[in-house]
Amino acid sequence: MRVLGIDPGTIVTGYGLIDEKNGRLLHVDNGGIFPPTKKPLPDRIYLIHEKIEALIREYSPDAIAIEDIFVAKNVSSSLKLGHARGAAMVAGTRAQIPIFEYSANKVKKALTGYGHASKEQIQRMVRSLLKLPGEAFTDASDALAVAICHSSSYRMLKKVGT
Amino acid sequence: MRVLGIDPGTIVTGYGLIDEKNGRLLHVDNGGIFPPTKKPLPDRIYLIHEKIEALIREYSPDAIAIEDIFVAKNVSSSLKLGHARGAAMVAGTRAQIPIFEYSANKVKKALTGYGHASKEQIQRMVRSLLKLPGEAFTDASDALAVAICHSSSYRMLKKVGT
Repeated sequence: MRVLGIDPGTIVTGYGLIDEKNGRLLHVDNGGIFPPTKKPLPDRIYLIHEKIEALIREYSPDAIAIEDIFVAKNVSSSLKLGHARGAAMVAGTRAQIPIFEYSANKVKKALTGYGHASKEQIQRMVRSLLKLPGEAFTDASDALAVAICHSSSYRMLKKVGT
Repeated sequence: MRVLGIDPGTIVTGYGLIDEKNGRLLHVDNGGIFPPTKKPLPDRIYLIHEKIEALIREYSPDAIAIEDIFVAKNVSSSLKLGHARGAAMVAGTRAQIPIFEYSANKVKKALTGYGHASKEQIQRMVRSLLKLPGEAFTDASDALAVAICHSSSYRMLKKVGT
């Protein structure tokens, strides 16, 4: 099963692709979408949408996993975040790929067994689980984390030692 | 010039289409998009996107006008509102239609000359300006209002007595 994880944002949208084969996790790709901050909001939102569509075309994921954030810094930043999530959802639903949302706590728990793990702990665990040569940058690492959360059963994660 | 006004929301997304010809405003269509509340958020968001795409195909607007809301009740409702706006923006930008955002105060001022006009005053003014047989329901009326705000110059509005 191939999973595309997305960590949406209007400044940076992180993405991460993993394969899960017989309980083993394989890293496929990760990176960021950086819409030019000087462009109007509709253009930035559309760029996120376009890039996710391109990723879907290139990698044909079986599922999309997005962090389900209902706590943001403030009303204005959550509104912007909503735009980015909406653009990502439209891309996935258009391609008829099922979309799954996971709370931050659930992602943390799936990766470390602890719902209040730090950003750094998650980053290290993503690196270790996917045998990355170095740590992915934060947004991409968060995207990989939500993809892992979706693809991994508790048992499989236990097997690799979390 | 034909303008599609949109009042986005995940419960109801209002829309309103008007033509502006030689300074005269003509009502074309108005209505609401009601995504089934029991469906998952990605499906509801996609439905909004699809219906706006269908409206664009049917009516070929020259511009899209959306209310620029940076004040919402709370973080959770503004996040949801963001999803709906993002879905609308993706539909417009995909069809290469320019998107314009207007603050609620600007819309109110354009229609009544007064930035703090009540919902009811706006509704009455929309009805009067577009010579509607009755008042459009709130969300559709708000969508017509932002379309009028975009299409109307101050001078034109003055001529019709606001």
